[in-house]
Amino acid sequence: MRLAQPLEVEDWVVQSMPDASPVKWHLAHTTWFFERFVLRPLGVPPVSEAYDYLFNSYYESVGSRHPRARRGMLTRPTAAEVVAYRSAVDARLAELEGSTRLAEVAEALELGKNHEEQHQELLLTDLKHLFGENPLAPAYLVEREDEVRSPGEATTMTWHRFEGGLASIGHDGSSFAFDNEHPRHQVFVAPFELASRLVTCGEYLAFIEDGGYRRPELWLSEGWAWVNAPGCAARRAPMYWDLDAGTLFTLRGKRALVANEPVCHVTYYEADAYARWARSRLPREAEWEVAAERCGAEQRMAETSRAARSHDANGAFMEDEALHPLAARRGAGIAQLFGDAWEWTASAYEPYPGFAPLPGAFGEYNGKFMVSQMVLRGGSCATPRDHIRATYRNFFPPSAAWQFTGIRLARDIP
Amino acid sequence: MRLAQPLEVEDWVVQSMPDASPVKWHLAHTTWFFERFVLRPLGVPPVSEAYDYLFNSYYESVGSRHPRARRGMLTRPTAAEVVAYRSAVDARLAELEGSTRLAEVAEALELGKNHEEQHQELLLTDLKHLFGENPLAPAYLVEREDEVRSPGEATTMTWHRFEGGLASIGHDGSSFAFDNEHPRHQVFVAPFELASRLVTCGEYLAFIEDGGYRRPELWLSEGWAWVNAPGCAARRAPMYWDLDAGTLFTLRGKRALVANEPVCHVTYYEADAYARWARSRLPREAEWEVAAERCGAEQRMAETSRAARSHDANGAFMEDEALHPLAARRGAGIAQLFGDAWEWTASAYEPYPGFAPLPGAFGEYNGKFMVSQMVLRGGSCATPRDHIRATYRNFFPPSAAWQFTGIRLARDIP
Amino acid sequence: MRLAQPLEVEDWVVQSMPDASPVKWHLAHTTWFFERFVLRPLGVPPVSEAYDYLFNSYYESVGSRHPRARRGMLTRPTAAEVVAYRSAVDARLAELEGSTRLAEVAEALELGKNHEEQHQELLLTDLKHLFGENPLAPAYLVEREDEVRSPGEATTMTWHRFEGGLASIGHDGSSFAFDNEHPRHQVFVAPFELASRLVTCGEYLAFIEDGGYRRPELWLSEGWAWVNAPGCAARRAPMYWDLDAGTLFTLRGKRALVANEPVCHVTYYEADAYARWARSRLPREAEWEVAAERCGAEQRMAETSRAARSHDANGAFMEDEALHPLAARRGAGIAQLFGDAWEWTASAYEPYPGFAPLPGAFGEYNGKFMVSQMVLRGGSCATPRDHIRATYRNFFPPSAAWQFTGIRLARDIP
Amino acid sequence: MRLAQPLEVEDWVVQSMPDASPVKWHLAHTTWFFERFVLRPLGVPPVSEAYDYLFNSYYESVGSRHPRARRGMLTRPTAAEVVAYRSAVDARLAELEGSTRLAEVAEALELGKNHEEQHQELLLTDLKHLFGENPLAPAYLVEREDEVRSPGEATTMTWHRFEGGLASIGHDGSSFAFDNEHPRHQVFVAPFELASRLVTCGEYLAFIEDGGYRRPELWLSEGWAWVNAPGCAARRAPMYWDLDAGTLFTLRGKRALVANEPVCHVTYYEADAYARWARSRLPREAEWEVAAERCGAEQRMAETSRAARSHDANGAFMEDEALHPLAARRGAGIAQLFGDAWEWTASAYEPYPGFAPLPGAFGEYNGKFMVSQMVLRGGSCATPRDHIRATYRNFFPPSAAWQFTGIRLARDIP
Repeated sequence: MRLAQPLEVEDWVVQSMPDASPVKWHLAHTTWFFERFVLRPLGVPPVSEAYDYLFNSYYESVGSRHPRARRGMLTRPTAAEVVAYRSAVDARLAELEGSTRLAEVAEALELGKNHEEQHQELLLTDLKHLFGENPLAPAYLVEREDEVRSPGEATTMTWHRFEGGLASIGHDGSSFAFDNEHPRHQVFVAPFELASRLVTCGEYLAFIEDGGYRRPELWLSEGWAWVNAPGCAARRAPMYWDLDAGTLFTLRGKRALVANEPVCHVTYYEADAYARWARSRLPREAEWEVAAERCGAEQRMAETSRAARSHDANGAFMEDEALHPLAARRGAGIAQLFGDAWEWTASAYEPYPGFAPLPGAFGEYNGKFMVSQMVLRGGSCATPRDHIRATYRNFFPPSAAWQFTGIRLARDIP
Repeated sequence: MRLAQPLEVEDWVVQSMPDASPVKWHLAHTTWFFERFVLRPLGVPPVSEAYDYLFNSYYESVGSRHPRARRGMLTRPTAAEVVAYRSAVDARLAELEGSTRLAEVAEALELGKNHEEQHQELLLTDLKHLFGENPLAPAYLVEREDEVRSPGEATTMTWHRFEGGLASIGHDGSSFAFDNEHPRHQVFVAPFELASRLVTCGEYLAFIEDGGYRRPELWLSEGWAWVNAPGCAARRAPMYWDLDAGTLFTLRGKRALVANEPVCHVTYYEADAYARWARSRLPREAEWEVAAERCGAEQRMAETSRAARSHDANGAFMEDEALHPLAARRGAGIAQLFGDAWEWTASAYEPYPGFAPLPGAFGEYNGKFMVSQMVLRGGSCATPRDHIRATYRNFFPPSAAWQFTGIRLARDIP
Repeated sequence: MRLAQPLEVEDWVVQSMPDASPVKWHLAHTTWFFERFVLRPLGVPPVSEAYDYLFNSYYESVGSRHPRARRGMLTRPTAAEVVAYRSAVDARLAELEGSTRLAEVAEALELGKNHEEQHQELLLTDLKHLFGENPLAPAYLVEREDEVRSPGEATTMTWHRFEGGLASIGHDGSSFAFDNEHPRHQVFVAPFELASRLVTCGEYLAFIEDGGYRRPELWLSEGWAWVNAPGCAARRAPMYWDLDAGTLFTLRGKRALVANEPVCHVTYYEADAYARWARSRLPREAEWEVAAERCGAEQRMAETSRAARSHDANGAFMEDEALHPLAARRGAGIAQLFGDAWEWTASAYEPYPGFAPLPGAFGEYNGKFMVSQMVLRGGSCATPRDHIRATYRNFFPPSAAWQFTGIRLARDIP
Repeated sequence: MRLAQPLEVEDWVVQSMPDASPVKWHLAHTTWFFERFVLRPLGVPPVSEAYDYLFNSYYESVGSRHPRARRGMLTRPTAAEVVAYRSAVDARLAELEGSTRLAEVAEALELGKNHEEQHQELLLTDLKHLFGENPLAPAYLVEREDEVRSPGEATTMTWHRFEGGLASIGHDGSSFAFDNEHPRHQVFVAPFELASRLVTCGEYLAFIEDGGYRRPELWLSEGWAWVNAPGCAARRAPMYWDLDAGTLFTLRGKRALVANEPVCHVTYYEADAYARWARSRLPREAEWEVAAERCGAEQRMAETSRAARSHDANGAFMEDEALHPLAARRGAGIAQLFGDAWEWTASAYEPYPGFAPLPGAFGEYNGKFMVSQMVLRGGSCATPRDHIRATYRNFFPPSAAWQFTGIRLARDIP
């Protein structure tokens, strides 16, 4: 609810593309998740029968639902009714506290919280897409006067070496994780190097100026078709860039490109083409996870103050309210592994060996999307700080760019 | 503004299909029309430079504009900002009163008022389409308890004979009319008969039950393709009908079909197929106008009280707040020529002999749409009472059904 | 069969767009028409049961059929099998000669012959579209060395005045005509002027060079959308023109534009925009027919020798084998009313007052297409000479350009 | 050329979908490959300048080319001209024999031969798609009277266990292989079991009868959308099946389903759904290759006589002219690893660690397709016998079914 505070009611309603959802829908759907999977098993009657149809996202086993692409047609229930819905469900959940029946739904409660965290990020990225469509370029939050926009010297990108061999990746079950992070399993990884930070806008601009979007040899065939998609001029810069004006659109409005900031909102095609141009490649997800674990980064994630950004591996998170990736800090380690921008990996989203989806409707949460998507790692400036971890597997189709998706390079050791 | 009163802010924002516009857009565009064509020629500076781009509809000569199909993406300016825009322009227009410069813009002022009346109707039909999409089937106004829903005996349809010969149609210029109603000109009309009232839901149901939607011999080829359009089950009833439930959706919510009410929201294809099934045809627009003039209907349009409905030729108008066509009254004449439902004619929308579009941007008002559309006559239950006249030419593509479009039959005299 | 002689077997098979049909299909369908409507009523068994499905075009009352857009997928039956099919049906028809039963099918026989003539023209225009797609630009016939290509002085366009008043148009039933030409009926026509010849390529080039394709004020709204259709660069010249090279593609290969030749392969949108640019308009179909009858043109159509072209009203026909419109001859009258290029009229294709389609399947021949199409008059260089007459109504959607469609101007008399 | 012998000229021309190519195009393109990459580097002038444009498939570095989806529009060059083209290039290649310059193009020559083998398979599968579209269901070869169609007892499917651990996959470079099979590298594989044969039609029918196509819980989300794609009835059987008639279409015509034959022409979605229904999964490509190598299958591939089919691991190849997968033979080992049907693996098509595409235009051969596709292994009944090997990686999008794609099951060892 706090995320929706800077908005007008009008902003709650509209869906700017089929992949995105209205703010109102996010707020209702996450509450519905608790109602449907926590309260209903305990026999609590629903607030409204109609909401099962309206706010189910993709759970086939739960029943039919409003078509995804038409979520923005629903001017009713109103924003106020959705707020009331959230309050009603919150109140019923509050009544549960201390109940002996809580154990029956503990797993669903924990999943519901993590699910809501995912939608916090989506609410922001979907809203950015909506505002980005508007010729008035509205700002979600006003621009901050602070140091991070200084176009000063970029941190030099360096390469960090990782030895190869048998390694284990995946979650060990000691705490919450999504089913797609299980089971922990062995992989063989050849020695590799990982870049010390994300690719910056300045570096990406050099790629553009070197004809990056006009040289088919740099692109996957599907990516080249995307660059030259019929119905519009050929693409020549990332989403939200205005190349001619030298500006980009952010959740704090339109402003000048900053050379040191990480490039974001790139598709997999663009990330892959950039890497080829830079004579390197994208990391495989096992490499990324091995690197993140060896950096010990995860342990230090517990630090919750904003000061935590001084740690090498952490970039900005949702709570930092930058709502845009920040320039990497200087430091000896690998920066920005967590936060700032999701990192496209070279790995397709596949089940881990031994993967078993959760039973029941929760089995639809992750497993059924394991085709035609690529894995992203590390979280972004719109990810809640506590939500991310080294084993976390995000996934999107290679053409998706409306998330805060960036580029980290890797390379083989000859 | 009064039309928007029963709505929530959320209802102002959304566009349910490319042909429809959001309530907010209608309110802003009609005001923009006055600002652009009345105030600007007098040197009054615009309220906002951006609004020229956002609220121009289709005036190529005025400049580029927001894509029609994306009008619903604009959550900003907000509803409140649009209301403020209307107030600001209204205030500037009020300042003009008594000014000697008023004469310079008199034509634009009059056109602006008629333009706004057209958008009053569109606001209602577009809103109906939006609400009709919503599984909650919201009502714009609550259902009235009154006599008109009684499924009692239908008025028997009778045929009225009109002699043929040379006749004049088109507007004589004695008062305001759109350019497409000019010039008044001679046509030769063969003798014909016109039905005494609109086709009713009960009659249309008989067509459906007789296999109307499954018999290709009743349909135009393009209509038959429309019935069987890929991507959905074959059509089998008019828009807003739920044939299995026996209900229809109205601006006052979902309710039972009433046999005596005029069928509406039919495409030209359906109107034409029904007429063929009924061994008759749709009237040509010259026939319709000749009949309307001979009935002397127009003169009696001046009566403004609701009681005016007792006049044969008048059905319900916007001011009657039925917002749905009403069953025809008994009477000796031809009923429902004006109001209740637009009547598809068998005439394509073409320029009259000698037609000349208005000079300048107003020349784009009507003339450039004179292809691939059919003429409709008579106004509907959503048309402002003073807006309609015997020479009025409305036009829509044959596949359009979201206006209050109905069927009046005609036939040749052998 | 003679039309197919210059072709390779490969050319018989392919369908270059849904509106076009393969040569093989034309040859089989026209034969099927005789088999289905002449032989079957007389009890003659079909050559192949499968052909009813494969070679029915659009007769719903006859049964289901192969989807129109997939006609080019049928590599079988082979060309040889289709030739054999034609021979078999021809032989059975020959056996009928002298039979007393011929009277029963006389109407179908006559319709079948006229139907075949229509497909002769379509075979040529569909083939032209196919060859026009091929980067090798194959020629159907080789270019002729003759006088008509000389880019000499164009015949000056003059205006011919026609008095207004009541007139009769439509066929009088004294000989064969399609049902859509009936009945002959009265119309009122205001005085008008008609251009002495078709618009030439040179004149059309002046329109292009004057920014014709970049000035929205010249276009119908639907036409402007067509010019700027997404998915390709904006249109800027007629079909088959290569504006940069100054060439056009004809059935005799690619060659230089000739200024004096009639422009052809224009859409209704282009014809209408050109007329607006030229401060005139397209003729209404009643005007065209009145002019053609007053010129007495039709009577003189009987002359069959190529010399007939010297008559003012006649241009080239299929038998002349120019297969492209020729420059108008000098003369006192109105040239090219018949032949050379179909003339877009400003009239939508509607039933004449009193129109009744033929009974049975033949009722589907013309009537069911009477919406969303425009009438064309006069025949073209691909029309068999005996096929055309002053009352003949051809019809195509306004976006169609692959027929030999040209422009004749008209204007009001003030 | 031998593959084209049973065809009519008409069959050479048509393209039945954008993914497929006409026979004529396959014959010309494979010859063009030799001309462009073998002869041109040696300075031999091209047979026709135009063929570079017409017969380049997807080599951006070689120049622009005819749009893939329009290959079937090219009725010229004719079949005879393509045959002449092949002869001319063959003659020029023959002249090279014994030349000292042969070494310069040895790699291109070998690639050209392997490339042609790939197109032999595609020619057959594309042709099958074309014939499958035709209501006449033409047969490429007539049905054989032999034992393999007997619907006798199916070989029982058994499970073969493979131990886990570090293994090497990929080609060792000792002979020809495509670049995507390199480099040989280490992978860690958990212990697994592999099915002894392909899934049969009878087994797949049980899946259908158990509601397989109506149970969303069995499908990937993208697969479920594919099953219920708008524009057609929901899918309910593999491509080329007529479930109601109990028949399937083969290159030898339409005939009854045979329970013991392998199911083929399934999409990845169907293979994956079937595996889930069968409480197992598809093999990963590393597992498949490990199994194939441990079976020593590859060594025994050298046997070239038809009798080789008696070897467990070998099914039918192109040379066997069954042109449809055959029922598995009884035997102790794993049957049908090679031939009969391509086996969908659960692995997305990604570069091997250390992968480097070939330099120059050949670098476009495989690498640029490494996204959004799944790996298939083992070859099919349309694959030339010598073309396949254990390291061979074929790849298609998950929705592709017109290749001979089948299902082999795998499962984890708990």
